[in-house]
Amino acid sequence: MSGTVFGACPTPLLQYRQIVLGHGSGGRLTHELIKDVFAPAGPLEDQATLPFAAGRLAVTTDSFVVKPIFFPGGDIGKLAITGSVNDLAVGGARPRFIAAAFILEEGLPLDDLRRIVASMRAACAECEVQLVTGDTKVVDRGKGDQVFISTTAVGEVPEGVSLSIAAARPGDRVLVSGTLGDHGIAILSVREGIELDTPLLSDCAPLTALVQALLAVAPGVRCMRDPTSGGLSSALNEMCEASRVGVEIDEGAVPLKPEVRGACEMLGLDPLYVACEGRLMAAVPAEQADRALAALRSHPLGREAAVIGRVVADHAGYVTVRSVVGGERVLAMLAGEQLPRIC
Amino acid sequence: MSGTVFGACPTPLLQYRQIVLGHGSGGRLTHELIKDVFAPAGPLEDQATLPFAAGRLAVTTDSFVVKPIFFPGGDIGKLAITGSVNDLAVGGARPRFIAAAFILEEGLPLDDLRRIVASMRAACAECEVQLVTGDTKVVDRGKGDQVFISTTAVGEVPEGVSLSIAAARPGDRVLVSGTLGDHGIAILSVREGIELDTPLLSDCAPLTALVQALLAVAPGVRCMRDPTSGGLSSALNEMCEASRVGVEIDEGAVPLKPEVRGACEMLGLDPLYVACEGRLMAAVPAEQADRALAALRSHPLGREAAVIGRVVADHAGYVTVRSVVGGERVLAMLAGEQLPRIC
Repeated sequence: MSGTVFGACPTPLLQYRQIVLGHGSGGRLTHELIKDVFAPAGPLEDQATLPFAAGRLAVTTDSFVVKPIFFPGGDIGKLAITGSVNDLAVGGARPRFIAAAFILEEGLPLDDLRRIVASMRAACAECEVQLVTGDTKVVDRGKGDQVFISTTAVGEVPEGVSLSIAAARPGDRVLVSGTLGDHGIAILSVREGIELDTPLLSDCAPLTALVQALLAVAPGVRCMRDPTSGGLSSALNEMCEASRVGVEIDEGAVPLKPEVRGACEMLGLDPLYVACEGRLMAAVPAEQADRALAALRSHPLGREAAVIGRVVADHAGYVTVRSVVGGERVLAMLAGEQLPRIC
Repeated sequence: MSGTVFGACPTPLLQYRQIVLGHGSGGRLTHELIKDVFAPAGPLEDQATLPFAAGRLAVTTDSFVVKPIFFPGGDIGKLAITGSVNDLAVGGARPRFIAAAFILEEGLPLDDLRRIVASMRAACAECEVQLVTGDTKVVDRGKGDQVFISTTAVGEVPEGVSLSIAAARPGDRVLVSGTLGDHGIAILSVREGIELDTPLLSDCAPLTALVQALLAVAPGVRCMRDPTSGGLSSALNEMCEASRVGVEIDEGAVPLKPEVRGACEMLGLDPLYVACEGRLMAAVPAEQADRALAALRSHPLGREAAVIGRVVADHAGYVTVRSVVGGERVLAMLAGEQLPRIC
């Protein structure tokens, strides 16, 4: 061992203020980044081993590429947690664990990353979900866009719960838990520099508690969806196709904030295509619809819940919208790209 | 219903040959992409519900940003499956389910995506893991780099298995399952246009079966790691730190392909820092080392397995390398970035 110097290597490295390629090396910079930025969010091991009771496990994954990464009412970190948690929640599962994989662009300010991770930590606490494992890659400048986050949520499906997009039946009522399109218009307004009279906040929020409140009084709920990309239109069209039913929406009953309505009129957007990140759509048997509505409205996230339509046997596979002046039109699934990088 | 035309919307869309922003819209193009490209890999629902026996669940997540996306011996799709599966396998878990989230750059040829997905499908079959859920986002041209994939693998930890990076003990032997650095040098040689006498293939491969063969004859294995980013050096340094032991490596015993040795000499790289994607490092009690080595060598992926060093009580936290000419040096963790975007 003589002559081998053991004290030489761990001299303090330069303090970086921005992400450099070395932060993705798997070497010392990666370890320092994990210790500095990610460790406060809990230990992030290569693999997490967790206790799990026998039963049904639910898994969902999503990438988040929202632009800008900070927006009124949230940021990419909060969105990355609530987005995956909500996918589980609307399936009736109880979110337990979450994994997060980061793709960072060289040059990202470390303070931005810290802010995003703090926001993820807060969202995890709110969702009662545990961030158990993670990964960090760095791509060269101009080959990414600040930060992309992929999250995967793992949950338990309680016994007896069998919500399915294929379970809607004629006669069911269609409910939404709040105003539509807030998230999409909030993103669009900052991105395109549109000035709104009232600053609009994203509706980005975890739906776990709202879903539990709903299922507690309306156990007959057939299916739920969170209308994210593609808006309510995609959620309803998917349900119509899978359940082989039609849906009739009463346009006048759809809750919209005046500023969302105004922005949509100005931009020629249909709010039924605009993304939400903290709303749910549910198909509920008619006899449980009143209770369901009351349960949603009694929760802070569901105060503006409404019954907006019904499931019909007619025109299976199609969603129709009856306008306030009495006309009827087919609400097709979004054909192109309306608002890219909304989530 | 009079006057409402139901046949009007599902006219065939233009056939795209490349990814456009609309493929990430959550609307019709997203659905067509899923049906066309992803559906053959199994149903990709927003959320997958799966049976799971009581016990310990293992979760790991990784993003893959390798450049180029197709390389000798593999591609980003194969890597995305084997990479996450291997993280579970070296922890002693049996991989069961995998989730994949894609971030596509506008302009990616659809045929490239098809090829990647086919490769993922083949890798899943080889690993006996089920691809259960997915997600697709599209970013504008110049804000990504063709395709990034984040995968999350979920597995079961068999009763009695408790491998840990903190479990190495003085006296243990350190084994590797094959030649080091093949993956890193294969990527580097195509990326930098380096001509090798023999074309070098990445070692990218699933380790599940190799690990099972090893654990069957050497149940005392303390810990395993797959030396990916940061190479063997990161794996050994992490073990030294967590187990509060030292490691002595015999440089002459480290298996290296001549072309890897040659490329490293030419480029001034230390192969102990170069990534593998189908190798494992294991710390094994001395009395089980022979059996462990024989088990590895009897498997096609472990033919060049070797005992390369030992765990010592001395110089805890440090890895030393004894060179073929007798000198000794400290093998520190990689300080900067050696080979960016290797996985």
